Amino acid sequence: MDLLAIKQQIEKLAAQKIGMYQKDFLLTWDKSEDDLAAVFLTAEILRGLRAQNISCRVFDSGLAVSNFRDNSTRTRFSFAGAANLLGLAVQDLDEEKSQIAHGETVRETANMIAFMADVIGIRDDIYLGAGHAYMLAVAQAVQQGYDEGVLPQRSTLVNLQCDIDHPTQTMADLLHLINYFGGVANLRGKKIAMTWAYSPSYGKPLSVPQGVIGLMSRFGMEVVLAHPQGYNVMAEVEAVARKNADQSGGAYHRVASMAEAFDQADIVYPKSWAPYAVMEQRTQLLQSGDTAGLKALEQRCLENNKKFIDWECTEDLMRRTRDGKALYMHCLPADISGVSCARGEVEAPVFERYRVPQYRQAGYKPYIIAAMIFLSRFQNPAATLRALLERGRKRIL
Amino acid sequence: MDLLAIKQQIEKLAAQKIGMYQKDFLLTWDKSEDDLAAVFLTAEILRGLRAQNISCRVFDSGLAVSNFRDNSTRTRFSFAGAANLLGLAVQDLDEEKSQIAHGETVRETANMIAFMADVIGIRDDIYLGAGHAYMLAVAQAVQQGYDEGVLPQRSTLVNLQCDIDHPTQTMADLLHLINYFGGVANLRGKKIAMTWAYSPSYGKPLSVPQGVIGLMSRFGMEVVLAHPQGYNVMAEVEAVARKNADQSGGAYHRVASMAEAFDQADIVYPKSWAPYAVMEQRTQLLQSGDTAGLKALEQRCLENNKKFIDWECTEDLMRRTRDGKALYMHCLPADISGVSCARGEVEAPVFERYRVPQYRQAGYKPYIIAAMIFLSRFQNPAATLRALLERGRKRIL
Amino acid sequence: MDLLAIKQQIEKLAAQKIGMYQKDFLLTWDKSEDDLAAVFLTAEILRGLRAQNISCRVFDSGLAVSNFRDNSTRTRFSFAGAANLLGLAVQDLDEEKSQIAHGETVRETANMIAFMADVIGIRDDIYLGAGHAYMLAVAQAVQQGYDEGVLPQRSTLVNLQCDIDHPTQTMADLLHLINYFGGVANLRGKKIAMTWAYSPSYGKPLSVPQGVIGLMSRFGMEVVLAHPQGYNVMAEVEAVARKNADQSGGAYHRVASMAEAFDQADIVYPKSWAPYAVMEQRTQLLQSGDTAGLKALEQRCLENNKKFIDWECTEDLMRRTRDGKALYMHCLPADISGVSCARGEVEAPVFERYRVPQYRQAGYKPYIIAAMIFLSRFQNPAATLRALLERGRKRIL
Repeated sequence: MDLLAIKQQIEKLAAQKIGMYQKDFLLTWDKSEDDLAAVFLTAEILRGLRAQNISCRVFDSGLAVSNFRDNSTRTRFSFAGAANLLGLAVQDLDEEKSQIAHGETVRETANMIAFMADVIGIRDDIYLGAGHAYMLAVAQAVQQGYDEGVLPQRSTLVNLQCDIDHPTQTMADLLHLINYFGGVANLRGKKIAMTWAYSPSYGKPLSVPQGVIGLMSRFGMEVVLAHPQGYNVMAEVEAVARKNADQSGGAYHRVASMAEAFDQADIVYPKSWAPYAVMEQRTQLLQSGDTAGLKALEQRCLENNKKFIDWECTEDLMRRTRDGKALYMHCLPADISGVSCARGEVEAPVFERYRVPQYRQAGYKPYIIAAMIFLSRFQNPAATLRALLERGRKRIL
Repeated sequence: MDLLAIKQQIEKLAAQKIGMYQKDFLLTWDKSEDDLAAVFLTAEILRGLRAQNISCRVFDSGLAVSNFRDNSTRTRFSFAGAANLLGLAVQDLDEEKSQIAHGETVRETANMIAFMADVIGIRDDIYLGAGHAYMLAVAQAVQQGYDEGVLPQRSTLVNLQCDIDHPTQTMADLLHLINYFGGVANLRGKKIAMTWAYSPSYGKPLSVPQGVIGLMSRFGMEVVLAHPQGYNVMAEVEAVARKNADQSGGAYHRVASMAEAFDQADIVYPKSWAPYAVMEQRTQLLQSGDTAGLKALEQRCLENNKKFIDWECTEDLMRRTRDGKALYMHCLPADISGVSCARGEVEAPVFERYRVPQYRQAGYKPYIIAAMIFLSRFQNPAATLRALLERGRKRIL
Repeated sequence: MDLLAIKQQIEKLAAQKIGMYQKDFLLTWDKSEDDLAAVFLTAEILRGLRAQNISCRVFDSGLAVSNFRDNSTRTRFSFAGAANLLGLAVQDLDEEKSQIAHGETVRETANMIAFMADVIGIRDDIYLGAGHAYMLAVAQAVQQGYDEGVLPQRSTLVNLQCDIDHPTQTMADLLHLINYFGGVANLRGKKIAMTWAYSPSYGKPLSVPQGVIGLMSRFGMEVVLAHPQGYNVMAEVEAVARKNADQSGGAYHRVASMAEAFDQADIVYPKSWAPYAVMEQRTQLLQSGDTAGLKALEQRCLENNKKFIDWECTEDLMRRTRDGKALYMHCLPADISGVSCARGEVEAPVFERYRVPQYRQAGYKPYIIAAMIFLSRFQNPAATLRALLERGRKRIL
């Protein structure tokens, strides 16, 4: 994107009706279509500015607090890259090195870490029913702290994956689709197959399939979910997908096999996840500290998974897709048969053929997060972006 | 604080006689009254500038090294926020990931981490007789390194809690009192009750009660310490408090019950700590690696604590204070009865009534630390603050 | 160095033929003499600028990713200081907190961490035959990612110690020698004794002795390696040293005792390392997870070490050096007899006499790393340095 194109995108953003100022980004379905469009526009503008060696530093100081309650590489580095791009320093809340074990309330911790925080990013995807609730509690605490004059700013939250949604992932996925198919309008009528796939690992969150059906159903696509019996996702999110599809003129339905889902699909997203019921049991066992029970559950679950070892994204299956050329997607890392495990989610040649597009897809995440931060901190984002462009400070001297 | 008020405060600071340049901040009683006043002034000026969206970035690059030998949330985030506000990047010395186990001397480590460090913040509060000594050793090493031409700057130390004092906490506490009572002059004659309180946890440092009596005794207040038999603090610090009280026209004395301490008090600070003798034994057991002994000691200590379970800040006790309206303080996190534990330091309604003032109190800490750093790095702090104001760079674009 | 001297050094650099732009720094012997000279010049210019309080911030934003697969204090802080000096924020890849255990490929991880990374620093010195290979794999991956349009920049690598070389250490060592002896030309004909020394610890990497003989042999010095039987280093690196010595008009040979190595030496570098064969066995045992075998090996190795307990840098041995005044060097931390262990690599009085020069030697490392980063990111480094000087922004306001 050259400078002229960047300017045009900024003016397009200026015309947008955006309601994200001082708001958290927790679930994509809490946001309007205009908000989502603003995120994509801002992400692309920031990416364009950086590519033109124009500094996007809008904060001369400020903290971006991260709180990873589960492992992360991509999202951690994306959050760090996004924060840094805008001028914020990452300060990680490592709960093992804090005093939180003392029985401190979430309300208190949230205020204590937020005094100098412009943004707070949280990953909490292990406990079903807990991750989103935790984010809501933190959001409520910082809102209250701001209202009470405790916090000098309303630090805004970014959901870096919870038990329900994974918006920084699915928004990056969608930006990839928009660019791949040449515009959001071209997504209308496209069929996307979000399907379960076999993996020898256990306990993968449901947030990606849920996030995908909850987001992709808003753009007139035909969204198909497929999984073995028992591997269902949250009914509430399926209801969201159904409603979205109705409103957008698309469709949402569930089928019972990968083959059916892949038939004439334009996009396939085969990925493993744990059955909802297993995740529920696991949450209970984790909370009661039942180690033996957890091991037994893992064993049962892995054995159950094995019944569906043929849920693999093969070359054969790919041939059923539109012209045999559906776009293969994954949030990464994928379990690649013969590479990262004996049998996994995808055959190595399929993965390899789509490796570069997938890496590009992952490469959108820092800008998606930066855009989410940007739009939550600036009341008139187009004006701020114009100011950045006018300032013209080089990122690298 | 508006810009005019900020300017006035800067001129007030300019008139102050300050001796903090290139000096460490280890114990409040090593500092003159003018120094302490300069810290408060600078903290408020920096807070005012940030509130006015004026960048306080005085370092274009530079490291703020942190060395946390014990857990921390508030102080860690305050140090990070302070460093970032001034433009320094935090680099944490995680002794588990370093080569320090090799038997390396403190002198060597101190020099190795200080090459690019403008400031070093240390928390070392576990070993009685060790924390302050460690800080002195580091301070001596960096002074020597600077004198020998090894270090290009004399990195200055900030005590983020030792076995003797917790100056960033008590200075934030005092700034809270100054603002709450409308000026330091209004503290004269006020009664502050620093009292032990029951907690089901064990081994809490003595640095807060010691720091409080060592600092609050300097402003003409009546400082009262109360604790069960055996829970005495360091005699040396009590001597400091007594001397301070004499010089400031205040008073320092010890009483044997919470009730007596609370009588007509203007401020109460009920907080648990371990008995000095227990901390001494614990230090010996820790150093000899006697795990069984440590467990036995913890058991004994917790059982001993239980004898004083009625040392709780209750509504009843609060009614004994001046007009029943003393200001309740805590360094947080507090052990709140029925919230973080069955029976603890404070009844939930008392805590809740003072929650907002307490959070505000905690909110001063980043600025107190920033002021300590600022005054140790700039020979003419008022001139630098004027320059910041003139530069007028926005913190957020 | 005053401003005039800095200007002169910049012009000297401008006349240099440098081939480091967008190149990794993995092994010193992959670099030309001009490249090495450019690193020294740039390091000294950056050090001079900082001493003159001129900001060296060339990046307004950007990440410096670190990946420490082994403990580190000096190099970690040096990397952090170097990155910060240039304006980059350090983002550490902690493999325990990442999803890399999933069996993810190096190619994928490398791309995922590199989206916003201007530089990647890696320490990987535990597995013989693995560290350098890992760095090559990462380098290849980011090159491929850049070529494929996945990465917006070719992040460049800095070897922070591998199984073969430790260039940031040996380059700092060499800059120390250049300054100590008054110029690189004065190194010609000097004798440097790189000798094994006894240590009660086990498994120390071979990268320092290998790096020293591979680098110091390029400047016309007489490089002598001495070690007990069985403690040989990699034959490939000895071949490099021999070839270097031939080309530079120096010499490289091996002797069987410390005494012989020290005879008339101008510089001595006594340091412990593990025998190559032991490191090979250890690598196999580590990779097969044979804990019992590892313990047995450690036991055997420590006992074998003890046979050579008299390989200690004593005052007596020092008297054999040129005028009894050879410069003693160590990469630190040293095992000092009577200080960090009962019997170790060096007698305390020898170490103490050379303590200040050694600390200075360590102090070059941040600037060496900054220079390596700088020269890999700027096509015309002299022009960029001139721009820094002209900008004249203060590091500290």
